[in-house]
Amino acid sequence: MEILSPSHRAKKTPPSPIRKLAGLAQKAAERGTHVYRLNIGQPDLTSPTEFLDGVRASAAKPVVAYEASRGSAELLSVWSDYINRSYSINVSPEQMLITMGASEALIFTFMVCCDPGDEILIFDPTYANYIGFAAIAGVRLVPIPFPPNAKGAVPDRSDIERYISPYTRAVLVCNPNNPTGSVCSDDELRMLISLCHDKELFLVVDETYREFVYDGLKPRCVFELAPKDPSIIVIDSLSKRFSLCGARIGCMITWHEQVMQAALHIAQARLAAPTIEQDAAAHMLTSVGESYIKQAYAEYLSRRDAAVDSLRAIPGVTTFVPKGGFYLLAELPVDDAEDFATFMLTEFSHQGQTTFVAPAAGFYMLREMGRKSIRIAFVLNAQDTRKAIAVLDAGLSAYKAKKGR
Amino acid sequence: MEILSPSHRAKKTPPSPIRKLAGLAQKAAERGTHVYRLNIGQPDLTSPTEFLDGVRASAAKPVVAYEASRGSAELLSVWSDYINRSYSINVSPEQMLITMGASEALIFTFMVCCDPGDEILIFDPTYANYIGFAAIAGVRLVPIPFPPNAKGAVPDRSDIERYISPYTRAVLVCNPNNPTGSVCSDDELRMLISLCHDKELFLVVDETYREFVYDGLKPRCVFELAPKDPSIIVIDSLSKRFSLCGARIGCMITWHEQVMQAALHIAQARLAAPTIEQDAAAHMLTSVGESYIKQAYAEYLSRRDAAVDSLRAIPGVTTFVPKGGFYLLAELPVDDAEDFATFMLTEFSHQGQTTFVAPAAGFYMLREMGRKSIRIAFVLNAQDTRKAIAVLDAGLSAYKAKKGR
Repeated sequence: MEILSPSHRAKKTPPSPIRKLAGLAQKAAERGTHVYRLNIGQPDLTSPTEFLDGVRASAAKPVVAYEASRGSAELLSVWSDYINRSYSINVSPEQMLITMGASEALIFTFMVCCDPGDEILIFDPTYANYIGFAAIAGVRLVPIPFPPNAKGAVPDRSDIERYISPYTRAVLVCNPNNPTGSVCSDDELRMLISLCHDKELFLVVDETYREFVYDGLKPRCVFELAPKDPSIIVIDSLSKRFSLCGARIGCMITWHEQVMQAALHIAQARLAAPTIEQDAAAHMLTSVGESYIKQAYAEYLSRRDAAVDSLRAIPGVTTFVPKGGFYLLAELPVDDAEDFATFMLTEFSHQGQTTFVAPAAGFYMLREMGRKSIRIAFVLNAQDTRKAIAVLDAGLSAYKAKKGR
Repeated sequence: MEILSPSHRAKKTPPSPIRKLAGLAQKAAERGTHVYRLNIGQPDLTSPTEFLDGVRASAAKPVVAYEASRGSAELLSVWSDYINRSYSINVSPEQMLITMGASEALIFTFMVCCDPGDEILIFDPTYANYIGFAAIAGVRLVPIPFPPNAKGAVPDRSDIERYISPYTRAVLVCNPNNPTGSVCSDDELRMLISLCHDKELFLVVDETYREFVYDGLKPRCVFELAPKDPSIIVIDSLSKRFSLCGARIGCMITWHEQVMQAALHIAQARLAAPTIEQDAAAHMLTSVGESYIKQAYAEYLSRRDAAVDSLRAIPGVTTFVPKGGFYLLAELPVDDAEDFATFMLTEFSHQGQTTFVAPAAGFYMLREMGRKSIRIAFVLNAQDTRKAIAVLDAGLSAYKAKKGR
C-alpha cells in the first residue's frame, strides 16, 4: 500500500523555533543537567491566587459544561470592565470574543480578514507563530524588513506603502513587540491607523504585552487613539500579564460588527473555550488588585536590566535595550546560532547547567536574517537570568574552542 | 471612511444550527420560562469526581504554565493505556496528539489531509460543525445523500465511489453517528478501510461517542480492524464519555508519522491545550472506575427509550431508533422545523415550560433536506426527556392552531 502524503500546507507549516529544540532540552534535563529556559515566554512568576481560587470554585460545579461560543457572559462583562478601568476605550461585551489564548484570536482574525492567498503586512523579524497562523489560515505574510537596530518601532509610512498589493488586507503589529522589545509611539500608531484608513486595510494590534513598557513609557491600547474604529482588531491575552500561559485565555476586540459576527460563526464551529479557566479568569478579574501587575512589572524591569547588562559584558555580543515586553534579540559571535543553541543542549554543560535559547532565524521570514542571533525571554528572576547568561558566556567559549579545533 | 468587508470565507462559515437559536432560548429563560435544552449534546450527568479532584490538585501548582504542544506527557501516557485496556489496538503516546476538544483534532486533520479546495466525502446528514471546520480549513465537503431511513450506517461502496474526484483526499465518518444515531457494522468499517486503500484516501473516524452503542452492539475502535493502518485517523474526545464538554480535551490518533509530524507543527503554532484540564484528565483516567461509564451507558439507554417512545406517541412524528450516540432525527408534521423551533422559543410556553430543539436542516449539506426535521439530544434524564417531549407535543398543537388561523 502506498503511504499517503499529507497536504502541501501541512508540509509548509514550520515547526516553532521556540519549541523545535524542546526535545533536546528534555534529554539534557534527563541527563541531570539543569536547563535555564530562556527560549520561551513562560514566566516563573506565580499565577494570581485569585485565579487559582477561581479554579477551585469552578471545580465545585458538578458538571463541566460547555460555555457560550463567544465566551462566558461573566468573563466578557468583567474583562471589558477591567479594560475600561485602565484605558478610556469604553468596550462592551458585544465587541469581545473570548478565545483559546491570543493564538486562536489571531487565527480567527486572519481567517475573517483574509481569503486564502490574501496578504498581511508584518515587520520582519516578527513573532514566529504568526507564520504558523498564516500557514493554518492560508494567508501570505509579507515581510517588511525592519531590523532590531532600526530607529523607532515600525518602518516609515512610505516604506510600508511600497509593500501594499491588490491582495493586501491588513497590517499586523505586535505592540510591545515580540521578539524585539520595541514599543510604538503614539505618532507611529496614528500613522498606522491613518495608513490603514487610506488604503482600506485592517489594522491588527497584538497587545499581549500591553502593560510591560519601561523607561517612562505609558501602556497604550490602540483604541484610545481611534475610539470604536471598525478597521482595528485588538488581540489580547491573560497569559503574560498574569503568568497564566497554560490557561489559554485570550480575546479579540473589534467594533466591526460583520467581523465580530463572522468570528463568532467560526467560534461556534469549535464550540467554546474551556469553562474552568473562564470561570477562574472572571473570578480573578473581579478581585485581583493592582499590586499583582505592579510586582510583575517591577520584576520584568529588573530582569530586563539583568539580561542586558549580562549580555553586554560578553565580548562580541550585541543587543539593544528592549523598551517593552520580555524578550530581546542578541547577536552572538557565532556563524549559526541554531547550531550553537543545539550545542548548548547536546554537548555542553557548565557546573551541571546549560541555557536554552531560541535561534532568532525562525523569527525572520526573510532568508539569511538573524542567523547569528538568538531570542532571549527574560522570564527567570534577575539572579537566575544572570546565571543563565553566565552559562551562555561559558558556552560561547567552549563552542569557539570546539570550532577552532 | 469605507467599512471594510470581511473575507468571503468568513461570510461562508455558517452559524451552528445547534447554537444559532441560543440567544432566543436565553431570552425565554429571562422571561421566566423553563427551557428543556434538547438542542445540544450537553449532558446533565455529573462529571467524574476524579476529574474535579484533579482540577483542585492542579490548582495547587503555583504557576499555570504552558503544556507541551503535543499534550502533557502524563495524559498521553494514561490515555493511551486507557484505550489499550479497552481495545486491542496498542497505541502509544507517539501516535497521539492532545487537542482542544475533538473540534480542534478535526480542524488539524482537515488541514493536514487537505490543501484548500481539496475534498472530503461525508454522508449527508452529517455533524453540522464539520461544515464549519471545512470552511475554516478551506476544504470542500462532498455530501453523499444517505437519509436516516436508509439501510445500514453508510452507503454502498459503489455509491461512495461515484463521488470520488481527483480532489478527494478523505472519507469522514462519525461512528456512532451524530445526528442519526447509526452505528457501522464491522463489515461496513472493513468496506471503508478497503475503499480508502484502493483509492488512496485517508479514512477519518470520529469516535467521540464510541462507548455508547445499544441493543447488543459492541463498542469498536476502527484500529481493531486495521492495526496501525497509516491511512486511518481516529478522532477522540472526553467530552461526551465523561460529561466533560466544557473541558475541551480531545485527541487525534494516527500511525502516519508524517501526518502526526505535520499536525504537531500546527499544534506548535497554537502553543498548547489548557494545562489544568490535562492535569485533571490524567488524574481521572488513572483513577476512574468502569462504573462511571456503565452508569452513563444505562442512563443514555433509558433516555433513548424515553425519547423514542414519547416521540412515537405524537401523531404525525416519524423517528428511527438510534443504535448509538445520544441523538436522533425526528420528522415533524410541520413545513419548516426552524420556524417551529423559533416559535417554541419566542411565542410558546406550556405551564411555564418550553423545549429547545435543533432544526435538522443545518445538519444537511444538500438543500431542501431535513426541512421538516429536528435533531434531539437525549441528554436530560428520562423523566425530563419525557416532559420535554410532552411540551414539544403541546407546542406542535399550538403551532398547528396558529398556522391554521
